[in-house]
This record gives sequence, structure tokens and C-alpha cells, in this order.
Amino acid sequence: MNYVVFYQQISNDLLIEGLQGQVIGEGMTIKVAINGYGTIGKRVADAVDAQDDMEIVGVTKTRPAFGCDLAVRKGYPIYCTFDEQDRIDAFGKAGYECHGGLSDLLSVADIVVDCSPGKVGASNKEKYQSAGVKWIFQGGEKHAMTELSYTSSANHQENLNAQGTRVVSCNTTGLSRTLVPLYNHCGELSVECTMIRRAADPGDSNKGPINAIKPVLKVPSHHGPDVMTVKPQISINSMAVAVPTTIMHVHVIVATLPEGHGLTTEKVLSMWDSQPRIILMNGGETGITTTAEVMEFARDIGRKWGDLHEIFVWKDGVKLEENTLYYFQAIHQESDVIPENVDAIRALMGVESDWNKSVSKTDLAISKYNNI
Amino acid sequence: MNYVVFYQQISNDLLIEGLQGQVIGEGMTIKVAINGYGTIGKRVADAVDAQDDMEIVGVTKTRPAFGCDLAVRKGYPIYCTFDEQDRIDAFGKAGYECHGGLSDLLSVADIVVDCSPGKVGASNKEKYQSAGVKWIFQGGEKHAMTELSYTSSANHQENLNAQGTRVVSCNTTGLSRTLVPLYNHCGELSVECTMIRRAADPGDSNKGPINAIKPVLKVPSHHGPDVMTVKPQISINSMAVAVPTTIMHVHVIVATLPEGHGLTTEKVLSMWDSQPRIILMNGGETGITTTAEVMEFARDIGRKWGDLHEIFVWKDGVKLEENTLYYFQAIHQESDVIPENVDAIRALMGVESDWNKSVSKTDLAISKYNNI
Amino acid sequence: MNYVVFYQQISNDLLIEGLQGQVIGEGMTIKVAINGYGTIGKRVADAVDAQDDMEIVGVTKTRPAFGCDLAVRKGYPIYCTFDEQDRIDAFGKAGYECHGGLSDLLSVADIVVDCSPGKVGASNKEKYQSAGVKWIFQGGEKHAMTELSYTSSANHQENLNAQGTRVVSCNTTGLSRTLVPLYNHCGELSVECTMIRRAADPGDSNKGPINAIKPVLKVPSHHGPDVMTVKPQISINSMAVAVPTTIMHVHVIVATLPEGHGLTTEKVLSMWDSQPRIILMNGGETGITTTAEVMEFARDIGRKWGDLHEIFVWKDGVKLEENTLYYFQAIHQESDVIPENVDAIRALMGVESDWNKSVSKTDLAISKYNNI
Amino acid sequence: MNYVVFYQQISNDLLIEGLQGQVIGEGMTIKVAINGYGTIGKRVADAVDAQDDMEIVGVTKTRPAFGCDLAVRKGYPIYCTFDEQDRIDAFGKAGYECHGGLSDLLSVADIVVDCSPGKVGASNKEKYQSAGVKWIFQGGEKHAMTELSYTSSANHQENLNAQGTRVVSCNTTGLSRTLVPLYNHCGELSVECTMIRRAADPGDSNKGPINAIKPVLKVPSHHGPDVMTVKPQISINSMAVAVPTTIMHVHVIVATLPEGHGLTTEKVLSMWDSQPRIILMNGGETGITTTAEVMEFARDIGRKWGDLHEIFVWKDGVKLEENTLYYFQAIHQESDVIPENVDAIRALMGVESDWNKSVSKTDLAISKYNNI
Repeated sequence: MNYVVFYQQISNDLLIEGLQGQVIGEGMTIKVAINGYGTIGKRVADAVDAQDDMEIVGVTKTRPAFGCDLAVRKGYPIYCTFDEQDRIDAFGKAGYECHGGLSDLLSVADIVVDCSPGKVGASNKEKYQSAGVKWIFQGGEKHAMTELSYTSSANHQENLNAQGTRVVSCNTTGLSRTLVPLYNHCGELSVECTMIRRAADPGDSNKGPINAIKPVLKVPSHHGPDVMTVKPQISINSMAVAVPTTIMHVHVIVATLPEGHGLTTEKVLSMWDSQPRIILMNGGETGITTTAEVMEFARDIGRKWGDLHEIFVWKDGVKLEENTLYYFQAIHQESDVIPENVDAIRALMGVESDWNKSVSKTDLAISKYNNI
Repeated sequence: MNYVVFYQQISNDLLIEGLQGQVIGEGMTIKVAINGYGTIGKRVADAVDAQDDMEIVGVTKTRPAFGCDLAVRKGYPIYCTFDEQDRIDAFGKAGYECHGGLSDLLSVADIVVDCSPGKVGASNKEKYQSAGVKWIFQGGEKHAMTELSYTSSANHQENLNAQGTRVVSCNTTGLSRTLVPLYNHCGELSVECTMIRRAADPGDSNKGPINAIKPVLKVPSHHGPDVMTVKPQISINSMAVAVPTTIMHVHVIVATLPEGHGLTTEKVLSMWDSQPRIILMNGGETGITTTAEVMEFARDIGRKWGDLHEIFVWKDGVKLEENTLYYFQAIHQESDVIPENVDAIRALMGVESDWNKSVSKTDLAISKYNNI
Repeated sequence: MNYVVFYQQISNDLLIEGLQGQVIGEGMTIKVAINGYGTIGKRVADAVDAQDDMEIVGVTKTRPAFGCDLAVRKGYPIYCTFDEQDRIDAFGKAGYECHGGLSDLLSVADIVVDCSPGKVGASNKEKYQSAGVKWIFQGGEKHAMTELSYTSSANHQENLNAQGTRVVSCNTTGLSRTLVPLYNHCGELSVECTMIRRAADPGDSNKGPINAIKPVLKVPSHHGPDVMTVKPQISINSMAVAVPTTIMHVHVIVATLPEGHGLTTEKVLSMWDSQPRIILMNGGETGITTTAEVMEFARDIGRKWGDLHEIFVWKDGVKLEENTLYYFQAIHQESDVIPENVDAIRALMGVESDWNKSVSKTDLAISKYNNI
Repeated sequence: MNYVVFYQQISNDLLIEGLQGQVIGEGMTIKVAINGYGTIGKRVADAVDAQDDMEIVGVTKTRPAFGCDLAVRKGYPIYCTFDEQDRIDAFGKAGYECHGGLSDLLSVADIVVDCSPGKVGASNKEKYQSAGVKWIFQGGEKHAMTELSYTSSANHQENLNAQGTRVVSCNTTGLSRTLVPLYNHCGELSVECTMIRRAADPGDSNKGPINAIKPVLKVPSHHGPDVMTVKPQISINSMAVAVPTTIMHVHVIVATLPEGHGLTTEKVLSMWDSQPRIILMNGGETGITTTAEVMEFARDIGRKWGDLHEIFVWKDGVKLEENTLYYFQAIHQESDVIPENVDAIRALMGVESDWNKSVSKTDLAISKYNNI
């Protein structure tokens, strides 16, 4: 019944750390472009917009459609993903003010967050480089293309002042949140992870399966090893299946710790409790026993879109037996990378070298737009 | 592409009507108790809390559990559903301040909104009557028990200053929103409705079916005829099936209009467009073609819990052929009755005799807590 | 508890009618080609193969794949859907004996049942006509293309000796089974039908939605009015939604009977009970209350593929109120048209002019390959 | 494209081994009672009935209901689960011939297969012992109660002539099929298994979740370690989640082999290929990439109820990397233990000491009732 405590703690932590964060970025505002205003783009835009050291200078759509109205509501200038004049003009004909093509947007931005649907990364990268702006890709692109990846808890420092990076996927971000502190404590880690993936997002009514389990037959899957792009010292493999649900991935994790790790189940829980962006709750006590109740919890605490930026770990599903640590964690696939994108902007722009300070500043600002 | 227009219209309507609403309730605040702080209760509480002529004096829980934390966050005093001292004390032991039993709560309230899980209505009604407070039940209770039912568009006037009433169910509320204006225009109406019902709420992980369609074998079902408790002149039958989804009911409606109705498909659309709490959108143009995209739309426009208080009607699914009107509407089962509960409070307390003014005031206040 | 009776009756009926059926088709065997050996084709092939007056002379596949093995097991000669030699040769390379292209198959057939995925109907029709074989299309093709449609209970006679026809869709077949006898009794009928459709077949893991209801926004939908291609005197409209299940469509039917119809709920049930290919069961008594239990019943009685060729009507979901008849029926989308295809072959070949005799002969033969 | 080969091989294997099996049980027939004629009981009854050395002497139902009709169709004598005369008489009143209570059934049986819903095991065991019949429980009961467990590939020999045993659960049976041969080769094995479980059976329309993933918070889950009741030398842990599907569990297995195991991915596949009751297929080549297509395959090859007694392993999902073997396997939860029950009868009755011979005999007999 540590539920009230949980809320209070969050509030206090944010307050204290938030105040410390005030040293950052006085006076200057980072101009951020969002290339691709869809599921991820709309969320990154709002998270950036909530920060006092950043502003949205524009978002792109490929054509005048759903989503433009949302941008209008939020007051984000609309640009066309393409530079062709007729495609730009199509927006005006549909009743939306369009401020130009991608090139025009890049000319007024310091940094671009690429949230396009993937597979166009390489050609976009060239455009960003030509335009002289910094760039951030999402986890759908390959590490090989960006040559640098990012997640707040693992390698903020390495990304400082870089020209561009890739914020790792929702799965990799989630794994890093719990595994990096474990690695930092133990110094060695060998991990097997089974990913039970939601087969489609809530707003996607086309994809199935309706009644089946679909194994990802490429073994091991790419998800787990991607952690090594941000923390190469963690040895990890993964296997994945897709299942007929639209809300949250679940990771089933078996981590082998080195001899003499000095941990207990309780100590692991304490360690995670002290980390940002991890929620630890007891399923038996709270009745939050499936991803359905986790998402209901996010709605209850007033999160925009019902999102959950944090990783959810069931306390009573964590067990350390000798050197083997077992646990489940649930990942909100639509949103857990959102705050990491904000932190990555600060890293690339070189305005905050301490990842913990950036995280506190990001999360405090975001907490203000939630609907508690 | 009338999407921006749609938003602007909503804003203007609310603004204008909201201002007109300022005459209401100056100085006095209605003290509202919520008996049963669950799926409906938590939503009614926030909607009431947002009004300037009402306040929440307390909410009840049967035992210290999930939900108490939410009440603490919101600042709503917690009471126990029961008066037994040991049950009251259990809250304190679990770390929650409990202000007493139901009797204590009733003693400080003007009116109680009963959001208990149903089947306890009759005995609760006696308690409310003894305590001398007005009372509102939800649609789960039978009309025979309350002897009066309520929905804003149908019979606000009849409920003025009544001792108690029943806000009709999500389905009946939804039917009334579109059928009452139609009846008001035509003077006669014969309706067949098929209800495709979500089998469980999003936060309920126990109920099935996972892969089946379940007909409600009692024919006709109780849902449609319940409209006649608020508008007896509408002749209506319904049949229902439950299907494996957690978001929204869909109504498939075939309404027979009287000869000489003078309507066209376009005129029906205009009529609905001028009514509160109906959203009309074109599925083909917006890509909102299933309940999944409808719910995503509600999340996008920042609605708390991702709720949609309005009935959603697909413009391109409405067709009037001679005397027969066909249409689909989607109902957010968790939330469409919420604003009606607020209006019902005003009706019973006799503070606003014009249903349209109450609706405008209610909706403007609610729109402010949404997260746009 | 009329369950045992139900089984016995089926057996007796089949036995008696089967014996009477012996007069048909002595000596000659109709040579049947199946163009398109997929979900429907594989079932039609087995049903034809079970008849003593027909034989399968070949089935087509577009390429050597899954399905060829099934044909090999069954002993059906494999042909290529195309006549190009390299496409034919591809089968041999993959280890399957291929007997030639479609033209080769048509040259040895009396009649072809086209079970190709649709949209290639018009060009196929020309091929069949050139080859001088009779042809049967499925309900995916339009009536306008075939100019004649077929369902056993409605218009067997009209199809006698025709050059080609179209067996109507699973939905239209199902509607005809219950509506035609009703029309035959009443002489007039006005019907509104809501179709709750399974969104994907059990073996299809790609299609969604996983969690949504999808209205078919074209109103009225094409499903209901298609009944008028086989029984133009029935006035019928329909609306449809797709839901996340893979097993069975459910029809919700409201039929208006003419004054003086002389029927009662019980009489309607008796009428249907005397018709072939309708199963009437009481959900409350048997526990068969959803499509899940209906399909389990089909598995229990040993049906191949777990198919249910019959329409399933819940007795306790049928209600006649004055002139309005309400009922639910469940349709096994993968299989209800299979016996109709067999009957249609007999109609076109002119070997049996009495639809009832053809139906009995077809069903008796099929019952023998089921796994009771 | 080894599909045809696959079928032929099955046929040949069965034929040859079947002939060798003829030595068994000449002259005498084991009298088998089925206590609990539900999902498992109805399948065990048919499998036993198909054997030439066994016969069904009766099946029990708690009351006259669905299922009795099935028993009548099959010709299995019906008994009441209880001995009270009024409960026995209830069958007659409902039109079923009831041959007595459980005691009556036990008095004519050599062995009873207990397929009751579980939790009544301990008291049933006493009844069986008093009646002097041998007994077999299912995996729902605990090993501690039966003190002996059984699965064909692991410990047939140990069960020879025992008084009673427990056929392990569908999951444990599936794990044993692939792990025991691996253990037999390597001599040592350490296994982590994640179980993605179907949340309800196809004929069960009550259970959810509809849209969620439910972790089994007891870690490690009981499923994996249960393997050690039949093969204590295999070290195994498991974690489990339930997902919204009704067809098949999927196991994600990571097995650590000892140094010097001498295996390759190909050798593992060959080893499994030579084992009974394992189907190995390539998902990429056959298009069988999810459990939906696996079940469709079972329907296509004519299996009664669409069952799949074999474990399904995706060839292209098997990978041995140094000492770590990764693979997926799908388990038909309703049926994989059925043939093991038949083998267990032979073990307890002492009529066949060679597990391989029993397996061949069992499977050949079963293959004859399938509907190929």
C-alpha cells in the first residue's frame, strides 16, 4: 500500500531535482524541428514544447490530413515533408497554412528530430548534414546508419556535442533503464530476454493477428542486442513473439549476475527505486496484474494520451535466485522514448552534460502538462 | 477537411454559451457526494469538481485500495461505503485518512451521486431518503426503482426539483442524443437498433470472450426500450451482441420516419450538427474508420482518460432513403454519461431550468480540464 | 435437452432421403475442375469428391506451395492456374507432378468451379466459355458479371441446364436459408439485417483489427440486397460491422411480415426445423451461447475442418412480436456455401431438377466423410 | 518444400512400426473408465477407443448436459460422477440412459483416467484405491499427490506396473518431447523457458483478457520445473505470461548445453526429426509463421477436432550458438497429452515395456480415425 508514498516521492524528487536544474541554458532557446508528425512526432513535439530551454519551430506532414489540425491546435507551424511547390500548395488548398518545405524548416532550426516512418533515414541524413543542422533519428533506423546511438541512462556523455544520433527503440530504452544500473553495480551481465510484443498500436486497426501468437523466427531477434549500441559491455540476446494486443510490450528477463554480486531481491528493487523513469509496483497489493491495469493507472494519473513514459516493473515478479535475476517489465511502446528524445537534444546541443540533471529537468517540465 | 472548422466551432460555441451561463448559481455551491469511486465515480467526481457551482464533499470506497490514492491526489475526502467502525478504521491502518462512514458523508451533502456497482440501489435509496439528501442513480439500476429517469436532451424539465432520479445508461444516453432531436422534428419515430457492445472495459482483464460473438438472447434487449423512460413517445426495440473489444459500443440504427418528414440526409446531418455532445466526422476523409481511430482522436485532442463524452457519428455512414434513416454511432461506454450527471444535479437542485444552458456550462467547465 | 433427438433425426432424414436419391445420375460421372485450391476450393473439392455422381479431374494452384501437398494427399491432379510453360515447369522443380495449365484442365472437365480470389472473374469467364465448359463462380464476383446466381433453397429450378452461375456469398446463402421459407409462407417480406462480421479467417494472421469495431460505411451494405439476386421478391437492406474475431459471422435480423401471416414464434421454429441446413438449438439449455461454443459443437460432432455447413439459429433468440420477427443466426463463413456448390453443379448439368433431392444426396454423401 | 516427404515419412514410419507393434496385448482388452468427460476426457476416450488392446467401459458426467449426447453418439456408456441415487436418476429424466454412479463404473474397469477439472484429486484417489482399480490423473493435479508422474519419452519404464500415476501437463509434455532427447545426448542441460500461454480454450467464451498481457507473477512459474518430476536431471526454470488468444501455447526456450556437446543446429534438427510426436517445419518456406497457420495445417490434414498431438517446432527458429540453443515450440493445449494417456495405460497395466513401441501403436491407431 505504498501508493501514496509513491506519488509523494515522485513529486518531491521532481521538485528538488528540478530546482537544481535551473542552472541550465539560461537565455537561449534551442530551435527544434520535428520531421514527421505522427505517433512519435506528436509526442516529442509536446514534450519539447513543455521545456523552457527549447521551442518547436515547425513540424512536417507529407500531405494535408489528420494531424494538421492537431498541429494547428497546438500552434506548431506546419511544413511539407517535401520541397516541391505543388505539394506545399496542396496544404493551402485544404485550408492549412503551410510555411514551406523541409528545407525551409531546416533553415530555421538548430536540430531536427526525425520521426518519419523509417527506411528514409539515409537520404534524410544527407539533407540534415547539408543544411547544417544537428539530427536525431529514432530506433527504427539502424545504428550502422547513424554510427552513434543514445539513451539517457547509458551514454549521455558520449553523445555530448555530437552532430547526430539515434534514440534507441522503445524496447532497447526499456531494457537500458533496468539493466544499466544493474551493470553499473555488478560490472558484468549476461542477459536473455523474451519480448512479448503488442502486434499493433491502439490507433491502428489494420494489423493482426486477431487470434494467434507470432514468433519472430530470426533468432536471436535484433531487439536485445541493440542494447549493446549504447552499452557494449552488457551481453544480451533476445527472442520475440507478437501477440494480439495493442497496449504495451512485456519483457521477460533472465539476467545472470557475476559471482559475488552482493545483491538480494530487495537490494535490486531499492536500486531500481532510486533510478528515474522506472515505476515499481506490487501487482498482488494494487490489483495491477496485467498491462490493462497498468494502462488504466496511466489514465488515472492524468497522463496525456494515457501514456506511460516510465518502465513498469512488477515488484512481486522480481526474484533473484543465487546469480540469476528474473523479472517482468512492461513497456509503453508509444511513449517511453519521448523523454529520451528531449535529453538527446540537450546532449547534442551540449547544454547539459549531466544526464541526471537533464532527466530531472525533462520530467519536471513534462509532469506539468499532465492532467493530474 | 472540416476538421479545423470543427475545433473552432466547438471553442466558439462554448465561449459564447459559457458566457451566457454566468447567470447561474452565483454565490451558492452544491455539495456533492460520490458513493462509489470507481470507473464512473472517478469521472463524475472530476466533472463536478470542474464546475463553479458545485463541489465534492467526499467519495466512498468499500475498503482501502487502489482508487484511494487517486482520491488523495485529487484532494477528495475519503469515506467508507459502510458505517461499521472497524471497516472505517481499516482505512487508517492502511495509511489513508478516512472521514467516516456513508452516513457521515450524507450528513454534509446536498445530493449524492450513486456510482456503486448496482444491485444495491434499493437499499441505498432508503438511506438517501432517510438522510434527507437528493440522489442520482446510474443506468445500471432499473427505472422501476427510481420512478424517474434523466437525460439532458430529453427531459431535463421534468426532473426539475425532483427528489431523485436515474441518469440513463451509456447506450440510452447515446440513443437519446441523436433520436430526441429527430423526434422533436418529426413528431413520430419507430426505431430498430442493433447494439454491438464492447465485452469488457479497458482496465478489466478478466472478462472474455477472446474470440467469439455473443448474442444477448433475450429479445428484444432492454437497451433500446430504456429510451422510453426519458422520451416515451419514441417507439424503439433493440437487439444486442457482445464482441471482443474493450473500446466503445457501436449502434446500428434503422429509424422509420413518418410520411411528410421533410428531411434529407443533409438536413439530418445539419440538425445533429447543431446539437450538443454529438461529433460528426467523415470516415473516408479523416481516416477515422473504426472505433480504434475514434479513441485515438480523443487522445489526440487531450481528453482526460482519453474519454469521449460526445457520441461519434460517421457522416458517410448516414443515409436517409425515403422514410428510412440508417446510421452508425459509437459510444464511449466509460464516459458519455458523465456530463449528464452534472446536468442532472442542476435539474434536481433546481438551479438551472434550461437544459441547453446547463449543457453549455457543464461542457465549458469540463473542456478546461482537458489537456489540449 | 432435445439434443439426442436432433442427432437421430438428422441420421434418419439423411438415410431415408438418401435412398430416394439413388435414382439420380446412374452410370455417368460429372467431371469437375476446381480453379483455385484455397480456403473455399479445398472444401468444395472434398465435397464433390464425396459424391457418387461427380469426380475431381484437377485443381489449380498459381505456384508450387502449401496446398499442393494437400492435393497430393487427396489424390487430386494438380494443374497450374496459368498456361505459360515456365510456370507449369516450376511445379516439377519443386517436386510436384503438374498436369498442365488451366486450358489443359478445362479440356478434360465438364464444369469448373471458380474459387479464385476474385477480381479475375470476367477474364476467367471468357476462358471457360471458349473451352466449352460450364462454370460456377463464388459470391465474391458480382451478379452483373454472371447474370445468374444460385442458392439451393431459392432458385435451383431457374439454374437448370444454364451455362454458368454464381453461388451467392456465405452471408446471402445464410439469409436465404431462413428467409426463403418465410417468404414462401408469407408471400411478402421486408427485412433489415445487421451483419456482425468476423474480420479475418482463422488461418489468416495478417488482418486486424485487434481491438476495434469497424463499420462498413457504405450504407446499406451490399450483403443483404444480394439476396434479391436469387429471390427478388424479398425486400431487404443490410448494414455491416467487422469485429475482432475469426470464427463466424452473426446476423441480427428484423423481418416485417405482412398482416395475416398466421405465424407464431413456435410456428416459425417448426418451419425452420423442417428445412435442410438449419440447426436450431436453445442457448440457455445447451450452454451454446456464443459462436465459440457453436464452433466447439462442430468440432465435437466430428466435422472436417470443424466446419458447420448449416446455419445456426438460437431458438431462444427468436421472437415474433405481432408482425415483426427478430432472430440471430450464425454463419460459418468458410463453409456454408460448400454444399450449395455441389447442388449448383447438379443444376447446371441438369441431372437433378428437385432441389430437395439434390440437397439430401449432397448432405448424405458429405456426412460420410465427417468424423463422427 | 519437404512437405510431401514429411507426409510420406509419417505414413511409412507408422506402417513399419505399427506392424512391429502387433506383438502387444494379443487377446486381452484393457477396460478403461473415463472420470470426467470434458475437453480432455472426450479426447482420451476416442484415443483409447481407437486402440485394439483397450476399450471404454464408461464415461462420467456430473449431470445430464451437453456432452451426454456426444457419449451417446460414440456409444460410450454414461455414468454419474456421484453415487447418490437422485443424481443418477436425473439422467433418466433428461432422456439419457445412465448406468449408475462412479462406484458402479469402477467395478467394471481395470483402470480409470481421471479427467475431472482438478482439485478433487485427493478424494478421488482414495475412491480408486478402495475400488482396486489403477488410476491416471492429469497435469492439473500435483505430483505430491500422485507421487509418480508420467510422460512417454521420459519415464515409461519407471511407471511399469505402478498402481497410479499422473500424466504431466500439456506444457511439461511438450517440453519433455524436445528436451529429453537433448538431455539423452548431452548428459546435462540447463534450461530457461518463457511460456506464452493462450488465456482460454476455443470453446470458453468467459475468460479474458481481451486486450492485455498477464504475467504470472509467481517466479519462477511451476510449469518448467514440473519437467523434473519425470526427468529430474534436467535443470529448468520458467516464467509465464497469458495472452489474448485461444489457440496454442508458445514456448521460447534457451537451453545451455555442456561443453563438448558435439551438436550443431542441423544435428539438433535431425535428432528431433527422429523423435515421435514432434513436427518440424520451416515457417519461411511453408508460410506457417504463426499459431493460426499451425492450427489451419492441423485442420487441413484432417485431424479430429483440428487437434495437433505433436509439438510444432519452427525449423528456422532453431539456432545453436556455441553452447546455447534457442528455439520456439507451439503446444496444442487441448490435445498434446492425449496419446501420452494411452501410453500411460499400457505402462501401468504392464502390457508394453518399450515406450517407443507403445508410442507407435498408439499413434498408428489414432491416425486411422483422423480424416485425411
